[in-house]
Amino acid sequence: MEQEIKVAVYGATGYTGVELINILLKHPRVKIVGLTSQSHTGKKIGDVFPFFEECLGDLTLTQDVEEEYDLAFLCMPHEQSLELVPRLLNQGKKVIDLSGAYRIKNPKIYSEYYGFEHGYPDILEKAVYGLPEIYRGLIKSAQLVANPGCYPTSVLLALYPLLKEKIKIEKVVITSLSGISGAGRKPVQHFHFPEMFGDFFAYSLHKHRHVPEMESVIKEVGQLDISLRFSPVVVPASRGMLSILSIFCEKIEPVELYIETYRCERFVKIASEPPHVKHVLGTNMCLLYPLWDPRTNCLQVISVIDNLGKGASSQAVQNFNIMMGFEEGMALNTIPNFP
Amino acid sequence: MEQEIKVAVYGATGYTGVELINILLKHPRVKIVGLTSQSHTGKKIGDVFPFFEECLGDLTLTQDVEEEYDLAFLCMPHEQSLELVPRLLNQGKKVIDLSGAYRIKNPKIYSEYYGFEHGYPDILEKAVYGLPEIYRGLIKSAQLVANPGCYPTSVLLALYPLLKEKIKIEKVVITSLSGISGAGRKPVQHFHFPEMFGDFFAYSLHKHRHVPEMESVIKEVGQLDISLRFSPVVVPASRGMLSILSIFCEKIEPVELYIETYRCERFVKIASEPPHVKHVLGTNMCLLYPLWDPRTNCLQVISVIDNLGKGASSQAVQNFNIMMGFEEGMALNTIPNFP
Amino acid sequence: MEQEIKVAVYGATGYTGVELINILLKHPRVKIVGLTSQSHTGKKIGDVFPFFEECLGDLTLTQDVEEEYDLAFLCMPHEQSLELVPRLLNQGKKVIDLSGAYRIKNPKIYSEYYGFEHGYPDILEKAVYGLPEIYRGLIKSAQLVANPGCYPTSVLLALYPLLKEKIKIEKVVITSLSGISGAGRKPVQHFHFPEMFGDFFAYSLHKHRHVPEMESVIKEVGQLDISLRFSPVVVPASRGMLSILSIFCEKIEPVELYIETYRCERFVKIASEPPHVKHVLGTNMCLLYPLWDPRTNCLQVISVIDNLGKGASSQAVQNFNIMMGFEEGMALNTIPNFP
Amino acid sequence: MEQEIKVAVYGATGYTGVELINILLKHPRVKIVGLTSQSHTGKKIGDVFPFFEECLGDLTLTQDVEEEYDLAFLCMPHEQSLELVPRLLNQGKKVIDLSGAYRIKNPKIYSEYYGFEHGYPDILEKAVYGLPEIYRGLIKSAQLVANPGCYPTSVLLALYPLLKEKIKIEKVVITSLSGISGAGRKPVQHFHFPEMFGDFFAYSLHKHRHVPEMESVIKEVGQLDISLRFSPVVVPASRGMLSILSIFCEKIEPVELYIETYRCERFVKIASEPPHVKHVLGTNMCLLYPLWDPRTNCLQVISVIDNLGKGASSQAVQNFNIMMGFEEGMALNTIPNFP
Repeated sequence: MEQEIKVAVYGATGYTGVELINILLKHPRVKIVGLTSQSHTGKKIGDVFPFFEECLGDLTLTQDVEEEYDLAFLCMPHEQSLELVPRLLNQGKKVIDLSGAYRIKNPKIYSEYYGFEHGYPDILEKAVYGLPEIYRGLIKSAQLVANPGCYPTSVLLALYPLLKEKIKIEKVVITSLSGISGAGRKPVQHFHFPEMFGDFFAYSLHKHRHVPEMESVIKEVGQLDISLRFSPVVVPASRGMLSILSIFCEKIEPVELYIETYRCERFVKIASEPPHVKHVLGTNMCLLYPLWDPRTNCLQVISVIDNLGKGASSQAVQNFNIMMGFEEGMALNTIPNFP
Repeated sequence: MEQEIKVAVYGATGYTGVELINILLKHPRVKIVGLTSQSHTGKKIGDVFPFFEECLGDLTLTQDVEEEYDLAFLCMPHEQSLELVPRLLNQGKKVIDLSGAYRIKNPKIYSEYYGFEHGYPDILEKAVYGLPEIYRGLIKSAQLVANPGCYPTSVLLALYPLLKEKIKIEKVVITSLSGISGAGRKPVQHFHFPEMFGDFFAYSLHKHRHVPEMESVIKEVGQLDISLRFSPVVVPASRGMLSILSIFCEKIEPVELYIETYRCERFVKIASEPPHVKHVLGTNMCLLYPLWDPRTNCLQVISVIDNLGKGASSQAVQNFNIMMGFEEGMALNTIPNFP
Repeated sequence: MEQEIKVAVYGATGYTGVELINILLKHPRVKIVGLTSQSHTGKKIGDVFPFFEECLGDLTLTQDVEEEYDLAFLCMPHEQSLELVPRLLNQGKKVIDLSGAYRIKNPKIYSEYYGFEHGYPDILEKAVYGLPEIYRGLIKSAQLVANPGCYPTSVLLALYPLLKEKIKIEKVVITSLSGISGAGRKPVQHFHFPEMFGDFFAYSLHKHRHVPEMESVIKEVGQLDISLRFSPVVVPASRGMLSILSIFCEKIEPVELYIETYRCERFVKIASEPPHVKHVLGTNMCLLYPLWDPRTNCLQVISVIDNLGKGASSQAVQNFNIMMGFEEGMALNTIPNFP
Repeated sequence: MEQEIKVAVYGATGYTGVELINILLKHPRVKIVGLTSQSHTGKKIGDVFPFFEECLGDLTLTQDVEEEYDLAFLCMPHEQSLELVPRLLNQGKKVIDLSGAYRIKNPKIYSEYYGFEHGYPDILEKAVYGLPEIYRGLIKSAQLVANPGCYPTSVLLALYPLLKEKIKIEKVVITSLSGISGAGRKPVQHFHFPEMFGDFFAYSLHKHRHVPEMESVIKEVGQLDISLRFSPVVVPASRGMLSILSIFCEKIEPVELYIETYRCERFVKIASEPPHVKHVLGTNMCLLYPLWDPRTNCLQVISVIDNLGKGASSQAVQNFNIMMGFEEGMALNTIPNFP
């Protein structure tokens, strides 16, 4: 039997943590040895989520992980990841951080967009942005992978073919729709079921943390210095993300370019009609639909992912597989539960 | 007691028809004397919708309306309205047409976007576009009001302050989210409950009938010849519409302009934060939220309506009130059912 | 112009409070002079619910109501109603209490089911149970009306024809499904949108507060001492309630009995097929569907209401109309918003 | 490498067919060699469901399966299964039939409940009812397995501990709530999204096909001749089933009995509080919650399954595994997607 990698999940009781555990339990080369939770410290995981009882019945949620392990997945608030990462790296652990704490090279962004000073610019420098379709080579040998946000994943995969080809882009206007799980598991008034049921609304129109994350990758990969007009919207669904990009750029025939760019990618496909969010729920897939609109001289791209899948936890496992030299799709779904 | 206006509703069993009847039943100056339905001809309305039995129990759904009446509301397919309108006008009836058959002055648009030749260009010429906040004066004396589509209502009210002031606009990118009732009452595969539940997707990205409708009003009111980049999306809710406009235009301070433009309007309000669709469901309200984004030099405007309310049936009643010289808000809600 | 009744709403920011205000604003004989809220004291109602701003813009949410008024609606937690009612009655106010604090004559029930000692048995004695179809006569002259719970309303209206006729009943098994608004407006984990979306589950199977409320009316009206087997269930909808009663009783032909019992009632109708919750949302209606099952010798009755309508706030207004001698249906809907 | 079993799926484009394919694609010992569809004959499966394109891209939907195979899963209408089964058995194929055509031994039931004469009483006799927790021994050597309906699965697993112990039962009252996928994939008016959204209602109260199916197993296993009072309800969710049983029987301590009965079963667990449907979605699990109510001398049992999982397709794969001598849980989930 092949050797198992021992992993810890920090922040096991949020949505990304639960999704991650769910995937890791199907992974033939992983053993989960530790789970942490701020809100449920001391409980068994099966007391919080009964469906985990059988597989993880003996695991108690702790503040920290004492057991030996090889790699930590961090599903915690940004501020907590910020401080935990240096400690784990010092211990020689590999880390995949699902928070935003190490996604952006420029530390100044953090004080403006996250509200804290980033005291570890050197670690920022070493962190690899975990979007495999762009940074696979670096991920392979990374000690710290900063797993991308859900909005950036859906948007950057839609832009990458243009960036790679250095297409000249003038303006990008993005509307992204997200299911409510993207806002986390903590109950709040406007996501209380009776209020969100039948509701949908835009938010954070002035300033969203994912904007500098997207712009910094665009700059790095495409050598482009553009400001995105980004409007996030929540819709009454649990999961799923749909991004609509209107890109004003030099005229191209996009379908061929998009197909070519992702020809060897297993988790990015070009759809032949506008894709449905429901076709990617529970999977690691991103479906793209590019379209040139001659009326407005605009490239329209539709991108769908599962915000907890390719937008978070399954992408983290994809990164894990790359880091460990495993087959990249190990334990990852491509077919959604339907309906 | 004041005199009642006798009205007929053609196409009474679709969603806009039902919503219209519901409002008209609360209207103190209206008597419904005839209802038609293609699909349920010969049935009583109470057999199709039991909740109408008590108020309209004796009314049978017919192919045509024989009774004498003053005004007809048409909630039928475009092609049927197209042919019925001339006949009713000849009979001296007033008509409020909720279809698209008489919304656009240029008859050529119909062959391109609706798939039929429009044989009544003279009537097109006389028809008044029923958006009261823009065309109130003309509506007062119109014999035929072409009630706007839901997408155009939400978009044009968001653009009107700019059009009125002749603000120079370079580009407009619009994403509009709609509840499923906007697609009509006929069951189809992708709106079958198990499939639409948890799903959301963009559609008609190449060509949507409401685009020329919007562009022709923009041209008429703002003397602007612009092509809109318009992306409609359906989300898993029954009702409601949210439009997100990214407008690249000369720099303005929008809040004052928007408040000023709509100061005397009862059904358009400027919200102080991004408005929720749920706050307008069941009402005739439109809530607007304008915001200048200095990062992208872009005016962002959020607009919410109920697609069956201000986007269709309650707006039709608002037009009716104007045409009849009644108080404009008669029978119209401003407060939503909540939650 | 006819005289307005001045009313206060205690607990204005919960779901029953909001629904009540919404109805009262349409009531031609009501003036709202005071609103209280524990959680939002000091804010204007329009800051909490922007859609109330126009109609109630000047009203500030207070801890108590200082203004003169005639009648108070209490939409507060049971414990708060318990103590407030005696004080208001002493001041000569009329009171309609939507909490459970004065619904059950036997004060001992309160320690067992509500967890508090009930110190006002004399007031319990005087309180009238506000189910108009059963207690209309007493409501007319009541100073304190204890407005029924949503489950009891749906169940008791389904049982009343049997109770009135003193039909011998052996067993009653009830399953009641409720939308989530019945659980209140305070955000909690399992009603957080992503968790309740697609979920449904039974709860409080051992002991539910509404059981003694139902049993005490059954005993009083039907002289029957039976223990109900009652299973409440929550389903992923905002509003609505569906009760399914399986009644083992002497053989009857129920349809005629039910129609006869409610022949003169405006808000209770006998449906000719199993009624949909959606047909009563936003209304004060109760639809009943009785059916004798010869296979099991069992009377099956289906009952649907809006839990916030006939199950709470519109029923409170119905009681108000009766107490004030107004037309009983004033301001009350019988036609739902659809779809 | 171990030998693959070649299977055909008849009726591949309905919900149970799609779910089945999804599970079979994860099964290490299965090769799908043929798919049929009445409604999409001639299309590739990837044209109907794009997410199947990669795994099954070359498979065309046919009327019949010409390829050689070992076992057929039938996900077709009852009438079609009725006629196909004899033909396939004659060819020596093994068959798992997900329709109701071979579930009930007494052929007379079919004319009364299904509306057709059953011309194959001898095959009915040989068919094994595919509820592994009751009939595992017979399933092992069956050529034809009649896969249970979703309602019977949830109800019979809740009753089995009593039947096995020959507990005396007087009455059983059942309310079962189902997601809409249980009604099939064909669009119909009342399951059109805008109408079902926020709705819930009971149906088929007089006569439901699953009643004789349940009663015949109860008779066979428990030697009990009882008539069930059964009320099915649809709720606004895509998947899931919750059954609430009120069982009037001799007094027992149920928890120990239920735990003991299912101690060795992997897919039936006794929950320590009322289980959520969401905890079994996408799995083959059944969660049971038994409770003795001393007030009514009634045993209450709550049972949850995924109607398309343990209620249909994953149970079919469980039966398949048993028939083939594979590990019973092969390819089957026990952990739900959450949220």
